[in-house]
Amino acid sequence: MEIIRTVSWMKEAARGSRAENHVTGLVPTMGALHEGHLSLVRRARTECSRVFASIFVNPAQFGANEDLAKYPRTFEEDVAKLEAEGVYAVFAPEPKEIYPPGFSTYVTVEGLSDRLEGKTRPGHFRGVATVVLKLFEIMQPVHAYFGRKDAQQVRVLQQMAADLNLDTNLVVCPLVREPDGLALSSRNVYLSAEERRGALVLYRALGALRDAAVAGERSAPRLQQLLVDTIAHEPLARVDYATLVDAETFEPVAVLGGRPTYALLAVYFGKTRLLDNLLIEPVGPSGELFCSL
Amino acid sequence: MEIIRTVSWMKEAARGSRAENHVTGLVPTMGALHEGHLSLVRRARTECSRVFASIFVNPAQFGANEDLAKYPRTFEEDVAKLEAEGVYAVFAPEPKEIYPPGFSTYVTVEGLSDRLEGKTRPGHFRGVATVVLKLFEIMQPVHAYFGRKDAQQVRVLQQMAADLNLDTNLVVCPLVREPDGLALSSRNVYLSAEERRGALVLYRALGALRDAAVAGERSAPRLQQLLVDTIAHEPLARVDYATLVDAETFEPVAVLGGRPTYALLAVYFGKTRLLDNLLIEPVGPSGELFCSL
Repeated sequence: MEIIRTVSWMKEAARGSRAENHVTGLVPTMGALHEGHLSLVRRARTECSRVFASIFVNPAQFGANEDLAKYPRTFEEDVAKLEAEGVYAVFAPEPKEIYPPGFSTYVTVEGLSDRLEGKTRPGHFRGVATVVLKLFEIMQPVHAYFGRKDAQQVRVLQQMAADLNLDTNLVVCPLVREPDGLALSSRNVYLSAEERRGALVLYRALGALRDAAVAGERSAPRLQQLLVDTIAHEPLARVDYATLVDAETFEPVAVLGGRPTYALLAVYFGKTRLLDNLLIEPVGPSGELFCSL
Repeated sequence: MEIIRTVSWMKEAARGSRAENHVTGLVPTMGALHEGHLSLVRRARTECSRVFASIFVNPAQFGANEDLAKYPRTFEEDVAKLEAEGVYAVFAPEPKEIYPPGFSTYVTVEGLSDRLEGKTRPGHFRGVATVVLKLFEIMQPVHAYFGRKDAQQVRVLQQMAADLNLDTNLVVCPLVREPDGLALSSRNVYLSAEERRGALVLYRALGALRDAAVAGERSAPRLQQLLVDTIAHEPLARVDYATLVDAETFEPVAVLGGRPTYALLAVYFGKTRLLDNLLIEPVGPSGELFCSL
């Protein structure tokens, strides 16, 4: 499995794959790989004849006071995992290869990028959209794979791809959890043992919401209160947001109803900020709800 | 020659051209075609096996108080001219095809976009960069052709193409003038007969600057004063800017010297705002100047 360090080499590899009529897949990552990432690779392997991954801790999506410097870096292990999963090549550029001196072009998805994650992390989605567009231009994947754990990120990227008429198809894959329910995240390593136990409250809160919704509760304020009350039982947790939003607009909803809805959580444990979500989709003429936790 | 109205049809045509290994060229226009545009088509025809043009008056690059509604539209004549020049197909979408409801993604080239044209026309280059990126994604040209008359626009697009790792090669073509020296522009039709005569002062001013520079004047402030003084003789002219800038950064220069430099003019005649420029390039070890008017 090749480790590709430069844009020009990666472009050459992408051109070669296209010339050989490969259906190419891309799994973009910031490294520190866990089973969530590997589930994306496995999905890509079923749909693509050649799968590329990228490992790039993207400075443009970190705020000045965020964890860029201490973001976990486990490059050798990551490469071994990707190779074991049958990845064809890994694009792992240095920051200056992606952002050379004088770099000044940014992609912004307005509206969607300003809410929730975008409010807590100004500029975050601008950094994400810019680097993903660049990866698409460099790697020209037919399909690109993203995890639903970062639900708003996926939605921002879908809007970008539609608005800019990109040819790459975005594939959204299920959230992957630890056996006890904690959503997998590279940032989970930041948690102390006590915080790690406390963090299970996210899964419990979303599970309680799911149960209430399935039992017939349709009021978003009451369901939201259920999230907040459940999390309040965990003294180490500090809620950033806990809300129900339309899965397309990410605007708050008042009532669970005809449209797909996300219950979204962003909760601090010490300095570590964890995300989790529940996707609620109406199915069938009876308006039954299908919940993906 | 086909007139292509939809993105999906245009993408299909682009895919077809790629499958047949055509070297495709794109001449993006807002219609109201003149010899400047046609010179781009002719250049494209020498370098490409298949030339597409686009005709799209891009709302995103017009400010609220600008001339979007009255921008000259001469579609039938434009199509006849392009067909006569051997253009393969014209992409001429309606605005809602390019900016469907909910559209919210924009490309910004920071720094470069804020000066000169960008200062007088806030948001202009954001609109230009966004639509050109979209045209590139939809039409996938190998080469795309732009006129040097809009020097800053070309520079913004070059920066975008480099920063976003685009595969399209930007070709910058010479400025084309009327026999009496007026730079061709679709907006020249706005000029009254008197303004049309007065507008020749732009050519005279840049010519005077060239003569002074070739004669040895290297001081940018003195050369700039020469522009201003020359234009001051024309009572109908009102200067927006008249300046010498580095051709890469579009920052003001103090001295003509080792780097390519633009003398840039933006001058109002009534409500009509005209652009013109002179490119000054040092050549050879002696530092002689080569001027393109």
